[in-house]
Amino acid sequence: MNGKFYGVSVGPGDPELITVKAVNTIKKCSIIIVPQTKNENMLALSIAQKSVDMTDKLIVPVRFLMSHDIEKTQENHKRSAETIMEYLRQGHDVAMLNIGDISIYSTCSYILNIIEKNGFETEVCAGVPSFCAAAARLKKPLVSRKEVLVVAPGYTDELESLMSVNGTKVIMKSGKHMNRVKKLVEKYGMSDNTIIVESCGLENERIHYGIDETENGYFSLMIIKTSEENDNA
Amino acid sequence: MNGKFYGVSVGPGDPELITVKAVNTIKKCSIIIVPQTKNENMLALSIAQKSVDMTDKLIVPVRFLMSHDIEKTQENHKRSAETIMEYLRQGHDVAMLNIGDISIYSTCSYILNIIEKNGFETEVCAGVPSFCAAAARLKKPLVSRKEVLVVAPGYTDELESLMSVNGTKVIMKSGKHMNRVKKLVEKYGMSDNTIIVESCGLENERIHYGIDETENGYFSLMIIKTSEENDNA
Repeated sequence: MNGKFYGVSVGPGDPELITVKAVNTIKKCSIIIVPQTKNENMLALSIAQKSVDMTDKLIVPVRFLMSHDIEKTQENHKRSAETIMEYLRQGHDVAMLNIGDISIYSTCSYILNIIEKNGFETEVCAGVPSFCAAAARLKKPLVSRKEVLVVAPGYTDELESLMSVNGTKVIMKSGKHMNRVKKLVEKYGMSDNTIIVESCGLENERIHYGIDETENGYFSLMIIKTSEENDNA
Repeated sequence: MNGKFYGVSVGPGDPELITVKAVNTIKKCSIIIVPQTKNENMLALSIAQKSVDMTDKLIVPVRFLMSHDIEKTQENHKRSAETIMEYLRQGHDVAMLNIGDISIYSTCSYILNIIEKNGFETEVCAGVPSFCAAAARLKKPLVSRKEVLVVAPGYTDELESLMSVNGTKVIMKSGKHMNRVKKLVEKYGMSDNTIIVESCGLENERIHYGIDETENGYFSLMIIKTSEENDNA
């Protein structure tokens, strides 16, 4: 009988922010697929390892291509899915780890979609997204009452039009676009309403209030509030 | 010595979607504050109880006013905070439970803010928001690549202007505004791109594809996708 494939969100960095469901799911799988990018050092694995003993499991790193070339990316996803389906055909249950929540800008979703289309049984474990962890760290709500929340990647073409949306903006995954994003925030006079949280819940966590010239790391997230309504109610 | 106050997110409904941090935090508190509204039946408590033994804890239900009268609401929050601070002054550690994630439209944030301003030590545990759980249930990403995510309450005045934002819209907490929201979705021709997830992860969970005349419950969440880009990559 074929194994089952689990897309498992492990949360944003703090190992305690993994869910009970993720822990239980990892425990029952014999194969653990771990995304590995040039800079990531298998972060998802190091988060999960603090909550689950994985000594009896086969850890399979899968290298993801971080490219804007869709054809190359699709090819890469197909290859990763093929590797995983081979384990499933052998009857192994397979968990693929995913930082943050799998529904928010994850490569794991593509892989799951391919595996699902190939007729395998799949299941998804939701997790804590990085922006919820950052808000908790700041002890500030993201949105209250009638406020609107906008979440966007730093490289979206629509960033400028989003600046005028009345509500809280979370800009994620800015990477090498961070300086462009910062300039846009300054242009719209929102520098003082901005907080940048870097590597939330990890050892190298840093918090910056306002926009400055500091270099920000790969796991940086920007929260831009338009109002402080919630402080008064 | 004063006790410490913890705002604890317990996730959207599935008891396994509570974090390890929430479980550990509840374990170390002697007083558990549980929001109770007319319809809620202390849902946050019943979620947490399946993961944590609470027999030795004092469970304190706090009734929240669900009103658009800001003055009355503030008065209600102050009173709830006062009750909690009395336990803190007695040296008890207090956990206040919160459905979903505390940073997204929670009353608990206001209470925490008042307690913080009164000089007590506080900490926030992030959790899985309902929209991440709904996406996991549907095995569909909310956003991929350059897509933008908009989260809004059904009663926001800006709902119509948000319909034209190019990206995934999550409309939460529609309640008695649900019919107005549905009409707006139809007006913008997005009925076929809409999925309504009711009481995700609970016994009465229901999923509706497209907009119809069905009555939807209080814990209904609408996901409106503008593209299916992510299916192709």
